[in-house]
Amino acid sequence: MDSGSTCSLVLHATETGDGEEPRQANRRYKDPRIALEQRTLQPLHPGSLRLQILRVGLCGTDLHMTQRDPLGFVRSSAPASIPAQGRVLGHEGIGRVIAIGADVTRFRVGDIVAPESVLSCGACRCCRSGAFNQCLDARLLGMEKDGLFAAIADVPARSAVGIGRLAESERGLQMAACLEPAGVALLACRKTQMAPGERVLVFGAGPIGLLSAMMARRLHGAAQVCVVEPSAYRREFAAAWADQVAASAEALEIPDGGWDVVVEASGALANVDAVFRQIAPGGRVALLGRGGQPLRIGAVDHMITNAISVMGLRGHLGGVYERLIDLCLSGVLPLDRIVSTTIEGLERLRSVLEHPDDIAGGDCKIVVKLAD
Amino acid sequence: MDSGSTCSLVLHATETGDGEEPRQANRRYKDPRIALEQRTLQPLHPGSLRLQILRVGLCGTDLHMTQRDPLGFVRSSAPASIPAQGRVLGHEGIGRVIAIGADVTRFRVGDIVAPESVLSCGACRCCRSGAFNQCLDARLLGMEKDGLFAAIADVPARSAVGIGRLAESERGLQMAACLEPAGVALLACRKTQMAPGERVLVFGAGPIGLLSAMMARRLHGAAQVCVVEPSAYRREFAAAWADQVAASAEALEIPDGGWDVVVEASGALANVDAVFRQIAPGGRVALLGRGGQPLRIGAVDHMITNAISVMGLRGHLGGVYERLIDLCLSGVLPLDRIVSTTIEGLERLRSVLEHPDDIAGGDCKIVVKLAD
Amino acid sequence: MDSGSTCSLVLHATETGDGEEPRQANRRYKDPRIALEQRTLQPLHPGSLRLQILRVGLCGTDLHMTQRDPLGFVRSSAPASIPAQGRVLGHEGIGRVIAIGADVTRFRVGDIVAPESVLSCGACRCCRSGAFNQCLDARLLGMEKDGLFAAIADVPARSAVGIGRLAESERGLQMAACLEPAGVALLACRKTQMAPGERVLVFGAGPIGLLSAMMARRLHGAAQVCVVEPSAYRREFAAAWADQVAASAEALEIPDGGWDVVVEASGALANVDAVFRQIAPGGRVALLGRGGQPLRIGAVDHMITNAISVMGLRGHLGGVYERLIDLCLSGVLPLDRIVSTTIEGLERLRSVLEHPDDIAGGDCKIVVKLAD
Amino acid sequence: MDSGSTCSLVLHATETGDGEEPRQANRRYKDPRIALEQRTLQPLHPGSLRLQILRVGLCGTDLHMTQRDPLGFVRSSAPASIPAQGRVLGHEGIGRVIAIGADVTRFRVGDIVAPESVLSCGACRCCRSGAFNQCLDARLLGMEKDGLFAAIADVPARSAVGIGRLAESERGLQMAACLEPAGVALLACRKTQMAPGERVLVFGAGPIGLLSAMMARRLHGAAQVCVVEPSAYRREFAAAWADQVAASAEALEIPDGGWDVVVEASGALANVDAVFRQIAPGGRVALLGRGGQPLRIGAVDHMITNAISVMGLRGHLGGVYERLIDLCLSGVLPLDRIVSTTIEGLERLRSVLEHPDDIAGGDCKIVVKLAD
Repeated sequence: MDSGSTCSLVLHATETGDGEEPRQANRRYKDPRIALEQRTLQPLHPGSLRLQILRVGLCGTDLHMTQRDPLGFVRSSAPASIPAQGRVLGHEGIGRVIAIGADVTRFRVGDIVAPESVLSCGACRCCRSGAFNQCLDARLLGMEKDGLFAAIADVPARSAVGIGRLAESERGLQMAACLEPAGVALLACRKTQMAPGERVLVFGAGPIGLLSAMMARRLHGAAQVCVVEPSAYRREFAAAWADQVAASAEALEIPDGGWDVVVEASGALANVDAVFRQIAPGGRVALLGRGGQPLRIGAVDHMITNAISVMGLRGHLGGVYERLIDLCLSGVLPLDRIVSTTIEGLERLRSVLEHPDDIAGGDCKIVVKLAD
Repeated sequence: MDSGSTCSLVLHATETGDGEEPRQANRRYKDPRIALEQRTLQPLHPGSLRLQILRVGLCGTDLHMTQRDPLGFVRSSAPASIPAQGRVLGHEGIGRVIAIGADVTRFRVGDIVAPESVLSCGACRCCRSGAFNQCLDARLLGMEKDGLFAAIADVPARSAVGIGRLAESERGLQMAACLEPAGVALLACRKTQMAPGERVLVFGAGPIGLLSAMMARRLHGAAQVCVVEPSAYRREFAAAWADQVAASAEALEIPDGGWDVVVEASGALANVDAVFRQIAPGGRVALLGRGGQPLRIGAVDHMITNAISVMGLRGHLGGVYERLIDLCLSGVLPLDRIVSTTIEGLERLRSVLEHPDDIAGGDCKIVVKLAD
Repeated sequence: MDSGSTCSLVLHATETGDGEEPRQANRRYKDPRIALEQRTLQPLHPGSLRLQILRVGLCGTDLHMTQRDPLGFVRSSAPASIPAQGRVLGHEGIGRVIAIGADVTRFRVGDIVAPESVLSCGACRCCRSGAFNQCLDARLLGMEKDGLFAAIADVPARSAVGIGRLAESERGLQMAACLEPAGVALLACRKTQMAPGERVLVFGAGPIGLLSAMMARRLHGAAQVCVVEPSAYRREFAAAWADQVAASAEALEIPDGGWDVVVEASGALANVDAVFRQIAPGGRVALLGRGGQPLRIGAVDHMITNAISVMGLRGHLGGVYERLIDLCLSGVLPLDRIVSTTIEGLERLRSVLEHPDDIAGGDCKIVVKLAD
Repeated sequence: MDSGSTCSLVLHATETGDGEEPRQANRRYKDPRIALEQRTLQPLHPGSLRLQILRVGLCGTDLHMTQRDPLGFVRSSAPASIPAQGRVLGHEGIGRVIAIGADVTRFRVGDIVAPESVLSCGACRCCRSGAFNQCLDARLLGMEKDGLFAAIADVPARSAVGIGRLAESERGLQMAACLEPAGVALLACRKTQMAPGERVLVFGAGPIGLLSAMMARRLHGAAQVCVVEPSAYRREFAAAWADQVAASAEALEIPDGGWDVVVEASGALANVDAVFRQIAPGGRVALLGRGGQPLRIGAVDHMITNAISVMGLRGHLGGVYERLIDLCLSGVLPLDRIVSTTIEGLERLRSVLEHPDDIAGGDCKIVVKLAD
């Protein structure tokens, strides 16, 4: 393995001067385009790991970073920076350690690890209080720092977690490749304090929505899980974890007493407004999907009378990869069941990103195999 | 004391047929008007207490029930029902027990008690799980059941709390008359999990806002309390509990790191949208004031990135009157300091309700003395 | 059905004068003995339901109430009172409503209901704050108030919950008969804040221990559930819900990092001391079983360094029967799988109580069928 | 300022071979003795700060490290290691940055900082989940790593917090010197979920106990704060923050309903057992003081019936120094009011440690001034 250079999938875009909201990609970058490029590897940072990437997951955000909105801006509204030399995408995946920074002691060459996607600083007010996913100096892997869509990538050892015995089987590797979205879904379940016997409504059966449904069922004892998803293909995946699956909320039978928890993982915030009066007293709504539009809640009197909470959430709690790995190993959480398609190689990944309608729109999780 | 009839302040309004949202007063009732009337006392229910009312508090909702909006409807959007014979207003206050229902054992004639304003059923799903303020069959005193603006009123013993040694002084009685709004403010502080060292922004220096500021300071260890209030008179009251008081949010110095908690007690939800980007990671917003308009949050990306919650709240937690009474007695919580004006008699109260601009608009808490 | 009298299983004991700790049965009563007796039914209280009892569950406490310790006292240390006419035992079960008190509106004749076992007053400081299971005036059904081991029994409507569609099948009735211990086990899981991916150790595979294991697995996403139980017969039942089952804690493989949650449901508190150093940082211990002996924790330095909590718990949270019923109906929680033996009739129940070694010692949950 | 060497107060002890419990100092070290020594400074670690120590606080643990128990072992049971060259004591204090490690960017020479006392690794399972005070590889400053009782000391930048405007006054420096015990007391208040209107009993009016009382009053809205402390001198300090102060628990008037929270900060665990039956339903007990003896709770039935929790706690939550500094600056928390004595210089400190009965036994917080 040559440490001099590596093949990478790079996003380029034209910076449009004076964005007023600097952490919103779609206000700054126009005309996104991607290319496979050979990139020179920099010297390994003392606190980092060099990884041969084995599996990566394709996220909706990756697609939205390569697409343009009607005005020509990058469609995604997630924080991102795209420097002149381009940005290597990819924030989900696993890799084998091939070199270790001078200060790293917890890992060895050969370990297979999953990097976290929110690279926290460890020193800001939020990190110091343990809220790593709210790090004030967070760098999103594959968005604000070069990511995992590459043969070789460096990641901070602080944010890497060994996948342990998941490395022993192909299925384990698939599950490990899904740890990042699993962390996001678990955050939604934890922060909404989803409790045994509750009724949960999930909007969107993309990976986050599917995982939220799976976790509501398997980890939180929901009495009823319902999923709303326009794509028929995705609805099939959701059926395994839901009591009701429907193309729109109108088609659902509302449980007696209403929804205790609503997980909005589709990016269409209007969904929340549409079902707000169906939410039970003490209900909680998690907003995970970024759609760019404002939140509007018409039924404010219902919200006040019934003490309903709406919360934004991103990333995952510290320490959950370890917990998720244990849950995969114990058989409680079959993360690989969100994987709808496995493809091979960066060239094939480039093709999917360029022509997402061929495959990705109606798909669930696409995992890309880059090496054995 | 004649138990045959009692003088009461009664709200009349014209019901307008087929309201689509039956629990919103202002969609059903037009042309509100008030009158002092002599009402016959009904036989005392076995589970109730008959009270000689000593002090009542005037709430913004009382004013809004007697006012009309531009279309002529009752201005308040809080749940209410106004029967043909009218509704006795008043949900804050204290009274002396003058008769006791056959099944009541916890009280004696002569006790001075404070009734809770949300009369919970004790049997619905919410009550059975202890969330009395979300009772599915709640009846709001003075809104859905005849209230305290009367010489004599009956209340369920279940919802009455003895004020103990607060009865021993005039100041204690004043404090006890403020228990109801204090319960509401405490709910906001508790449910937002206001924690030591946090920065708290309160919109509105009416009684609920003032009490929220006082409690942020005295009960929750806020490091900074700031209040926004257009009325100069009310700002003077707020100054005792706030580091900064301003007529508008723009005039405030934003704390380094942003607001941890925002309490919206003005009813103008647009305030929340206006300061949303100033809210700190992990921040929480409590909506207490009903303004009738929808909630709109433009900065959804900020909300998601920073895990900010917005929660509606009403009423108070079970068992807090007892805690608040202890806090009054211990000197920690000088509830009477929100009282800006004390008036005497139902006739004077009627006059204030009919001509609120003379006194109430710029006032804080008005307490009405009805008996010694 | 004659409403004049009913056959009941009654516990008699000799009161021994001046117990210093009046709520501990075993300091007051000696020489317990049981008998089947025909008892006259009292007039139905306006707030009560009269039930034809269909199924009852036998609890370890029932056995301990009928047994004597080496000094001849009643063995159980749970709160109890045994009046001169004796006490009808039984706090788990379901019945069909055959008459309704004058004030009851929520039930109809023919409904099948499950009474809660802790009869809360609804008015004390604890009840008013929603902590019904800590009611200061609690009366334990079948311990401080006549219970369900009878053909007909009266219970307060406030504490009865309709079992809904569980009434439609024999299996549903079995599950409903297990609601009471299920509420206790759920309390342990909820109060210890058992979280996804955690490692749970349960002492005792009696009904409460089994249910705790089942819930750790099915409702709380435990990554590892281990059960310690001396009885081989009970260990077989536990195997369905546990990764490891052993006759003693020494035989278990301790998970890497230690136990996150320990549920002590065997009544032998020394178990907790024995494994205390195996408890993980932030670990929580729930004490459910009363054994009469003091709690001793030798590893206090470990407890302080690792922020470990030990909590006593009894009864169940308000509103959980409804949740548990939904979970039974949804198939998530097969409560009937703790039932090891079903017997028929009060006479057979009396026999089991008198000769527990024949059957009960090594048994799990015994359900008694009293009517169809 | 010579960077070659520094004067330090060093603890020596004789290691006694094969301690079975390696993290308990008093099972490994005998015959402690202290000396002022000139120590060579090591090269500054890239991640560390070199501090000129300005103020240090003397903790009971420091005293117990220098004293012997009846068997001749070091009296303290807190984790400690005493290498051959001795251990520099001191885990409370502040210093001025005089040199900065190569990798440190957040600080500048001249900043005044407070180091945390639990040096967390940032990488273990506990740290990764934000529970820094439960770090599996924690090193206690002044116990397992050389501490602050020196003219110059190095500390990891990760664990240092700038004291900001507290540096501008002598009083501010005194308050900053008390941040470490304040963090411990705040942990007790937070983890016991001390809530407005509760009744709090504190054992011990040493610094931690005093601060717990101050915080119960000022930050958590306790309705009643009571302190038990044998030393009359310390009781005077406690009086400012307590409703009742007594030499023993028997002398206290027990509040109606009992204690909601008990903070054990005296190290005498038998105190907890003695008052256990006075604890209210839902009560919580925090164990902060290490006394070496086991915990025994006789009233286990009371504990179970009333759902009482007992929790060990150590260190402080991440991010609280910043909050505490804000609270000092805002005037809410006058930390300096626990300082009973200020002395100057390491030589004087050595003398106090050698002859604690002259001064320290009955004292509260002793702050040592080492430089301006």
